[in-house]
Amino acid sequence: MDIHQLTRSLHTRNDSKIVMMVADGLGGLPLEPGGPTELEAAATPNLDQLAARGVQGASIPVLPGISPGSGPGHLGLFGYDPLTYQIGRGALEATGIGFELQAGDVAIRCNFCTLDDDGLIVDRRAGRIPTEQSSQLVEKLRQVAVDGVEIFVEPVKEHRFVVVLRGENLQDNVKDTDPQATGVPPLDPQATDPGSQRTVEVASDFLRQAAEILRDEPQANFHTMRGFASRPELPSYEEVYGLRAAAVAVYPMYRGLAQLVGMQVLGQPKTLAEQVEIMGQSWDDHDFFFVHFKYTDSTGEDGNFEAKREQTEKFDAILPSVMDLNPDVLIVSGDHSTPSFLRSHSWHPVPTLLVSDCCRPDGLTTFSESSCIRGGLGQFEAKYLMCLALANAGRMGKYGA
Amino acid sequence: MDIHQLTRSLHTRNDSKIVMMVADGLGGLPLEPGGPTELEAAATPNLDQLAARGVQGASIPVLPGISPGSGPGHLGLFGYDPLTYQIGRGALEATGIGFELQAGDVAIRCNFCTLDDDGLIVDRRAGRIPTEQSSQLVEKLRQVAVDGVEIFVEPVKEHRFVVVLRGENLQDNVKDTDPQATGVPPLDPQATDPGSQRTVEVASDFLRQAAEILRDEPQANFHTMRGFASRPELPSYEEVYGLRAAAVAVYPMYRGLAQLVGMQVLGQPKTLAEQVEIMGQSWDDHDFFFVHFKYTDSTGEDGNFEAKREQTEKFDAILPSVMDLNPDVLIVSGDHSTPSFLRSHSWHPVPTLLVSDCCRPDGLTTFSESSCIRGGLGQFEAKYLMCLALANAGRMGKYGA
Repeated sequence: MDIHQLTRSLHTRNDSKIVMMVADGLGGLPLEPGGPTELEAAATPNLDQLAARGVQGASIPVLPGISPGSGPGHLGLFGYDPLTYQIGRGALEATGIGFELQAGDVAIRCNFCTLDDDGLIVDRRAGRIPTEQSSQLVEKLRQVAVDGVEIFVEPVKEHRFVVVLRGENLQDNVKDTDPQATGVPPLDPQATDPGSQRTVEVASDFLRQAAEILRDEPQANFHTMRGFASRPELPSYEEVYGLRAAAVAVYPMYRGLAQLVGMQVLGQPKTLAEQVEIMGQSWDDHDFFFVHFKYTDSTGEDGNFEAKREQTEKFDAILPSVMDLNPDVLIVSGDHSTPSFLRSHSWHPVPTLLVSDCCRPDGLTTFSESSCIRGGLGQFEAKYLMCLALANAGRMGKYGA
Repeated sequence: MDIHQLTRSLHTRNDSKIVMMVADGLGGLPLEPGGPTELEAAATPNLDQLAARGVQGASIPVLPGISPGSGPGHLGLFGYDPLTYQIGRGALEATGIGFELQAGDVAIRCNFCTLDDDGLIVDRRAGRIPTEQSSQLVEKLRQVAVDGVEIFVEPVKEHRFVVVLRGENLQDNVKDTDPQATGVPPLDPQATDPGSQRTVEVASDFLRQAAEILRDEPQANFHTMRGFASRPELPSYEEVYGLRAAAVAVYPMYRGLAQLVGMQVLGQPKTLAEQVEIMGQSWDDHDFFFVHFKYTDSTGEDGNFEAKREQTEKFDAILPSVMDLNPDVLIVSGDHSTPSFLRSHSWHPVPTLLVSDCCRPDGLTTFSESSCIRGGLGQFEAKYLMCLALANAGRMGKYGA
């Protein structure tokens, strides 16, 4: 049975507040055997104090050994089975730049590329032209017009940009035009089902016009299209949990992911302190708050153990102001581990803490990778965290009589 | 793969005896952070001694965060996935009063109600008339006769009673007649599939006759019908485990649940001591014994920490007489937690103990919520407990070569 079949039928409503604090990439690794992880090296008095009141566990983002991207990592935390619900590449790229996809849109990741005089690809990334330059080209591509379709062209970074098609009968089963090789021409868009034929026509028309517009560019004289993807159909927090949910995040990707599950995205915060302030201002209007902190991940990806330790301490320092709001359920977790030792997302279970009046404390007094594996929540798949949140908030009825 | 596909093909037979002692609602919560749970506050020398010989774990009744009723709670312990096998409300109500449903029966929960002169519902529960009074009305309703159908009318409590229809072609996809509101008439029974049309005809005829019989009653002048449900089709212990299973329980609900999975229900015990005595008398006739103890749950539901602690000690005190029978596998668990702090069933994992000659002891010397999360069985879904029981009894063959 799908988890949401259960939560749909069992959830109840009350006045409780649930806060989910996500320190992106929270889990780490020691730099050498016997050494501490970033979290263990950090001074985290507030997390430790909360640990003494709460219950810990090790959250497995997808399945053992599977390192998720930001999309599946967050879907898991939000209670959406990341193997059932998938966000197509184009849709994730659009989401990541803050583009609000609508149902029926098709989003496409595009790369500027360099063609030679024979139309063969010389450089699949057009020399990774700087963002300032590609933004100007994106501006030019906004001239492209196709009857009956609204077209959005949005810069991303360097040679990358996004095209979103909005109109009738657009489906996303279309093959990439990037041949993943040089010395060959780009491929034509090709539908893998009849329902996507209209998308192929629009994309082909777009490419023809783009070729005209870009023809005299020295490097970026064409572009490829990849990852055609519609907005994923995700049931909303309101529908599956009965929660009026809000997200307070700095970065577009996480604001976008929250919006895909029907959370209201609050304010334009620049810092964690501002995020908590905004949460406090909207406290009465929502039942659930997702607060996203990016820098435990980015410092991990930089391979900077010390910086990740520092960012972990900054994250810890904000917790008293969160607790001042008196949430009924506080969850601290991460969407995956990002050990600076690996400089990448990893599969390692993520230390996860849940604090409520009825959480059954496990007697642990520190919050860490070593503690969490001895915690009362055991090791669990991230997708079950929202069930625990609802139960601890008194928002879940009894299953069966 | 369904667990029973495995146990069906792998189970073997021998002379071993398995005893499953179920302390209903065993798991609890501390009354304040840092305090003991009911089980931890109780003096349980026998459980602790067994813990030193055995292996512990934390049993998740259904899934994390899901609080089960008695039906799914026990189905899980019995090894039946509680999300796959569901017991309809009517069938559970009939089971709860000790009515032995047969395949093809349709059981219906009924409420006496009060109609005004216009036939509109004034009180959906007929003033919760006392059981003595409603029992007399139930007696009168036994006059109802419908051609080709055997009808049972059984009292439950106050305004509640059960009707069971036995005959050909009766299916249970019929909507409730209780409109869940006052000031409106009761609904007519309505089939949601063609196969249930005959049930609708019989139920409608029953209601017509009941209206006549009850018309002059001051309060209970009609009744509604809810939760139409056939006997659930549960494969038997004999078939899926090769076990001749017996149940020794005081309360009808648990005797009924055991009977639904093909256990033989033994005697009419009134106390735990009598239950163990009966088990001893039937020791040679069965391979598996389910012994149910109710009062750890009922005291929890009363919110009485002290009483639950005492009942836990009573449960502990019986264990030497169980061990005197020399079972090859002893399991101690609960169908769910019932913390007196919450006064209700809860989702918290249930301390579970397994003792056998080959259980791989985990070195723990107390049995409790805090211990079990560090135990050798880890956290596991209750539905796997029977596989562990069979394995420890030497009754499970090798999977694959």
